[in-house]
Amino acid sequence: MSMPTNDLQAYLHAHIPLSNAMQVRVLEITADSVLLAAPLAPNINHRETVFGGSASALAILSAWALLHTRLRDAGVTSRLVIQRNTMDYEKPIFGDFTARSSLADPAAWPQFLRLLSRRGKARMEVHALLECAGEPVGRLSGEFVALS
Amino acid sequence: MSMPTNDLQAYLHAHIPLSNAMQVRVLEITADSVLLAAPLAPNINHRETVFGGSASALAILSAWALLHTRLRDAGVTSRLVIQRNTMDYEKPIFGDFTARSSLADPAAWPQFLRLLSRRGKARMEVHALLECAGEPVGRLSGEFVALS
Repeated sequence: MSMPTNDLQAYLHAHIPLSNAMQVRVLEITADSVLLAAPLAPNINHRETVFGGSASALAILSAWALLHTRLRDAGVTSRLVIQRNTMDYEKPIFGDFTARSSLADPAAWPQFLRLLSRRGKARMEVHALLECAGEPVGRLSGEFVALS
Repeated sequence: MSMPTNDLQAYLHAHIPLSNAMQVRVLEITADSVLLAAPLAPNINHRETVFGGSASALAILSAWALLHTRLRDAGVTSRLVIQRNTMDYEKPIFGDFTARSSLADPAAWPQFLRLLSRRGKARMEVHALLECAGEPVGRLSGEFVALS
């Protein structure tokens, strides 16, 4: 069972104050993705579009949250560290926006858990798609390391 | 003459509310770099280190601010858009942190201004080094497009 959306949202707001400032909401958690949303107003820039730092931060949160909930569902306690990310800003974001994460290679998950169990360390790449008004507006690719 | 640090800080806080939530301060502006700082508390994560989204956002702001002030000093009015960035998180950030930007290739600046003037569009890569307690902790490389 995945974590309820309300629990994850409360966790984020309590432990990552920037998610609160960004007014991040957790819309959906499945085994395959975490969908987060944020409104324009607290994330706006001087051009009346979403600040790149906010776009990146929402994408990073959705990617982290997917690994966090999958590890939790697998009964694994570990520390997740982001090592690298690339963010493509494809279009200006003129309104409220969402980030939907997914594993870059879902078939790699069992091997990821085996490595984490055997060696205490494993890497996983997570993607996040940013959308605004139903259109793709940006993409993140993030590399995370889990440490047990 | 570069913009006074107070003016840039007021501009950021007024137009990018996330910079206010992050308590970003402008420490130094020179022709070659913009140095920004942020405290740990508003940027903390569930591990008591700086949230990756905050680290990215400070680096993006310092990179953007360098191009913004250089274009202003050159008397050029343009719109700056971030197209892509790569962020390496080299070490956990356990305290207040800074981001210092620099042009990836300072020698490319005259050509950048020429292209912007002739074609109304030019690209520039900007780096930002994140530091905490005098140590490098992360690096951003960002690609910006200026549109006149």
